[in-house]
Amino acid sequence: ATQAAVAATDISKLPRVKQELVAPPAVPKHDQVAKGGPKVVQVRMETVEKLVEVAPGAKVWALTFNGSVPGPLIVVHEGDYVELTLSNPKESTLAHNVDFHAATGALGGAGLTLVQPGEEVVLRWKAVKPGVFVYHCAPGGTMIPFHVISGMNGAIMVLPRDGLKDAAGKPYQYDRAFYIGEQDFYLPQDEKGNFKEYASPAAGMHEMLELSKGLVPTHVVFNGAVGAITGDNALSAKVGEKVLFIHSQANRDSRPHLIGGHADLYWVGGSFSDTPLTSQETWWIPGGTAVAAAYEFHQPGLYVYLSHNLIEAVLLGAALHMNVEGEWNDDLMKQIKAPDSFDAKAAMDH
Amino acid sequence: ATQAAVAATDISKLPRVKQELVAPPAVPKHDQVAKGGPKVVQVRMETVEKLVEVAPGAKVWALTFNGSVPGPLIVVHEGDYVELTLSNPKESTLAHNVDFHAATGALGGAGLTLVQPGEEVVLRWKAVKPGVFVYHCAPGGTMIPFHVISGMNGAIMVLPRDGLKDAAGKPYQYDRAFYIGEQDFYLPQDEKGNFKEYASPAAGMHEMLELSKGLVPTHVVFNGAVGAITGDNALSAKVGEKVLFIHSQANRDSRPHLIGGHADLYWVGGSFSDTPLTSQETWWIPGGTAVAAAYEFHQPGLYVYLSHNLIEAVLLGAALHMNVEGEWNDDLMKQIKAPDSFDAKAAMDH
Amino acid sequence: ATQAAVAATDISKLPRVKQELVAPPAVPKHDQVAKGGPKVVQVRMETVEKLVEVAPGAKVWALTFNGSVPGPLIVVHEGDYVELTLSNPKESTLAHNVDFHAATGALGGAGLTLVQPGEEVVLRWKAVKPGVFVYHCAPGGTMIPFHVISGMNGAIMVLPRDGLKDAAGKPYQYDRAFYIGEQDFYLPQDEKGNFKEYASPAAGMHEMLELSKGLVPTHVVFNGAVGAITGDNALSAKVGEKVLFIHSQANRDSRPHLIGGHADLYWVGGSFSDTPLTSQETWWIPGGTAVAAAYEFHQPGLYVYLSHNLIEAVLLGAALHMNVEGEWNDDLMKQIKAPDSFDAKAAMDH
Ligand SMILES: [Cu+2]
Ligand SMILES: [Cu+2]
Ligand SMILES: [Cu+2]
Ligand SMILES: [Cu+2]
Ligand SMILES: [Cu+2]
Ligand SMILES: [Cu+2]
Ligand SMILES: [Mg+2]
Ligand SMILES: [Mg+2]
Ligand SMILES: [Mg+2]
Ligand SMILES: [Mg+2]
Ligand SMILES: [Mg+2]
Ligand SMILES: [Mg+2]
Ligand SMILES: [Mg+2]
Ligand SMILES: [Mg+2]
Ligand SMILES: [Mg+2]
Repeated sequence: ATQAAVAATDISKLPRVKQELVAPPAVPKHDQVAKGGPKVVQVRMETVEKLVEVAPGAKVWALTFNGSVPGPLIVVHEGDYVELTLSNPKESTLAHNVDFHAATGALGGAGLTLVQPGEEVVLRWKAVKPGVFVYHCAPGGTMIPFHVISGMNGAIMVLPRDGLKDAAGKPYQYDRAFYIGEQDFYLPQDEKGNFKEYASPAAGMHEMLELSKGLVPTHVVFNGAVGAITGDNALSAKVGEKVLFIHSQANRDSRPHLIGGHADLYWVGGSFSDTPLTSQETWWIPGGTAVAAAYEFHQPGLYVYLSHNLIEAVLLGAALHMNVEGEWNDDLMKQIKAPDSFDAKAAMDH
Repeated sequence: ATQAAVAATDISKLPRVKQELVAPPAVPKHDQVAKGGPKVVQVRMETVEKLVEVAPGAKVWALTFNGSVPGPLIVVHEGDYVELTLSNPKESTLAHNVDFHAATGALGGAGLTLVQPGEEVVLRWKAVKPGVFVYHCAPGGTMIPFHVISGMNGAIMVLPRDGLKDAAGKPYQYDRAFYIGEQDFYLPQDEKGNFKEYASPAAGMHEMLELSKGLVPTHVVFNGAVGAITGDNALSAKVGEKVLFIHSQANRDSRPHLIGGHADLYWVGGSFSDTPLTSQETWWIPGGTAVAAAYEFHQPGLYVYLSHNLIEAVLLGAALHMNVEGEWNDDLMKQIKAPDSFDAKAAMDH
Repeated sequence: ATQAAVAATDISKLPRVKQELVAPPAVPKHDQVAKGGPKVVQVRMETVEKLVEVAPGAKVWALTFNGSVPGPLIVVHEGDYVELTLSNPKESTLAHNVDFHAATGALGGAGLTLVQPGEEVVLRWKAVKPGVFVYHCAPGGTMIPFHVISGMNGAIMVLPRDGLKDAAGKPYQYDRAFYIGEQDFYLPQDEKGNFKEYASPAAGMHEMLELSKGLVPTHVVFNGAVGAITGDNALSAKVGEKVLFIHSQANRDSRPHLIGGHADLYWVGGSFSDTPLTSQETWWIPGGTAVAAAYEFHQPGLYVYLSHNLIEAVLLGAALHMNVEGEWNDDLMKQIKAPDSFDAKAAMDH
């Protein structure tokens, strides 16, 4: 795809729309097929430092965009311009910026957006590549892994102007979309095995980075905490609905799986300009990538969406729940005989 | 692919066939192109708990399907129904079930198949997605990673009714097929470094799970033990034969490689509804996935098939041997000059 | 692709050309589209054992091909014959050989090339698979991981005779190519945390291998040392140029990312016979694989190419710099408002 320049005066004449960002796993309201030509999509993000509980007894100074881990999903169409206002409140203790993997040049914008506490910056960039992409804070040097493993990352979805296509090249419309941000945390423990709490983000930085060199996180979570998307917060859908799952991991590899379902479509690397793969049992996220997968639900009941390293899913936290309503389909699955005692000798003759 | 419901009365009229499951790396007898319409394929699996030696001096209470790690490969065609009888002998110490990644709903069947010691259950499900897929025990909570990393997993191959297709869309027939199940074990050691032996599966569970949180296995093996597929148990084939390698890893990422060969065809995620990749030196298995790769052998001799993290292959156990008979082809490779002493000065003038 | 045998007498009549190998990240001079028919491409490699500094205070006995980590890139076309002279100087302390993932049979040539100190061998093999492929030393048993994690690996590029094709099947010509070899090192430390220095390669082997079983490297570097491709050694290109990045990792998984850019094209597994993926933010290298990605630069400035596990990139060393000259394009990105202090109350009304 050519990335032909548009004169600056042209951009000034484009429609300007504000996008209200929402906390994950929700996604902002958007059209799947773009209405009209390119727009300037205005978004605001604030850098928020806050002490959050990742699991009972395990707290971290989360560095965030808009207060959530991950930050909010932004949605635009290919050819649109993103105009970001990034503000760092004066209560912050650190400088922050943003590197958009979807952007071109200046380290993804990181080189033009570093804001000290009390500062604000405005950056405009053109979305030239369709797909889902990570964004994250990248203030330089060891601050880069520190901010990212402290939660400072999110994703943007750049839809093709005419929407998604399935593996046969036919238009694909989803009924619901969810954004799942997976986060690896490296929380230092004291000699008794209790997680340490620090007075500020910087106070824990050295120990967290030293621990992180071992490359084994203490927690791997969806939406910032173990169990954040279960119970009342579980996702929901109905039989017959097509659901788009956008999943980002800004730092570490992951392998999403939907227990009892599949990826009917999976876009490798999250690229919407490639033909999606189909019928995937488990898919793949290289660290530093957002991907997308779609599934049409055929059975009601509880689904678990997780990273299929089951140690990470069950013991470290990388799992969420989803409730699907509808009619059970005996053709797809049926319990022919309920669990019952049996006669081993008779079974041998079977 | 639509997953149209078939009336239950119709299923009752379908042909019923029993499939004799065999121990890996063998695969059950099967047609590559389906004969006739959909069938109900009946299989029996028994949950077997047994103390096995993973490597000299390293024993584990293996939790298995049919006594092998991995469990047996099941082979059906798309549109067939799998009718599984799962029995848990009364000598067992734990409850077990099965989650088929190839199935739809009820947590892949796990929600309908939990059998206590002495119980039996029958589940029927329709194979709607073509490909190779993991199945594994998933009894809930921490029992899930415990049973899976104790060996309780296997795979099913759901062939397209008209067989496999190569990258050009032409029918592809294999001459042999092997099923390789890769298993990561996390075996606790005592203070002297000796692997600990426990009186029962449950006795070692807590320590094994604690160790597993570090995400580094003590052993990574094919067919349940270091060296299980070497020597007399090595695979074999002939020059000119096409061999299908089905490889599953139910929990942890892997990267198969055939030393001296390639994947002529590699189905990403094991999906047979996608065009296979070609000419792959090493391929990829996200944890929780079964994949397939095919190679036509062109040279005789010893081949090593391994996970190409060479530390895992050589030091942790993820390697097997294969002997190929036939005529050597000098065109493909020839030793022009055997190793011999040389004159370094002359070489410099070369 | 058929791999039809060519009579040995025919090979003797083919043109013979010597290829001068160069130290990475440079690549040898080559034609992208082959001129004429198949050739015998003669290359020489010497096994060199040398003590090198991976990072300040961290030395390793590097085992190398031609003195660099990674070894040099070889470039041929599909159907060409590689004729390698491998010499092991008598000053060496170990036997070495070479396993080409691009070759067929004899363990990729490893079975025919083992040279003791003071020996030389000549091996010819036919390049039948197009793509980029790892080669590495594989002397057997624990020597295999030891030599590979000590740096003894490189890559070969086998170009299609008619050159590369983009995702639409159109010819793709690159303006520059770079070869990045990523290396994981496992350097033992003493009780004070200082990296240990050994008198010879063999002296450190046991401790290095024991450490490696933990699967967590102490260093992950490009071109053999932390910061090897930064400052005066940084890569360079111009806006409008298409750059091919060949990246190998002989042992461990990696996830390349170009900060501020993308992979316009990414060949999975490095296979040039497959349609490349497009618009990738981050791509994937299974351990034991060389891959290729291409990008046309659109903005000037500093780029960082890294493994997007940011801990590995920043704390362990897997990053390089690239300087791109040209005109800034405001359409693609523009700082609308420089960082400045702001009034939080006004922002709320915004
Ligand atoms: Cu930040
Ligand atoms: Cu990044
Ligand atoms: Cu079980
Ligand atoms: Cu599973
Ligand atoms: Cu060597
Ligand atoms: Cu290899
Ligand atoms: Mg993406
Ligand atoms: Mg479906
Ligand atoms: Mg019961
Ligand atoms: Mg599969
Ligand atoms: Mg072949
Ligand atoms: Mg000799
Ligand atoms: Mg390759
Ligand atoms: Mg471009
Ligand atoms: Mg300032």
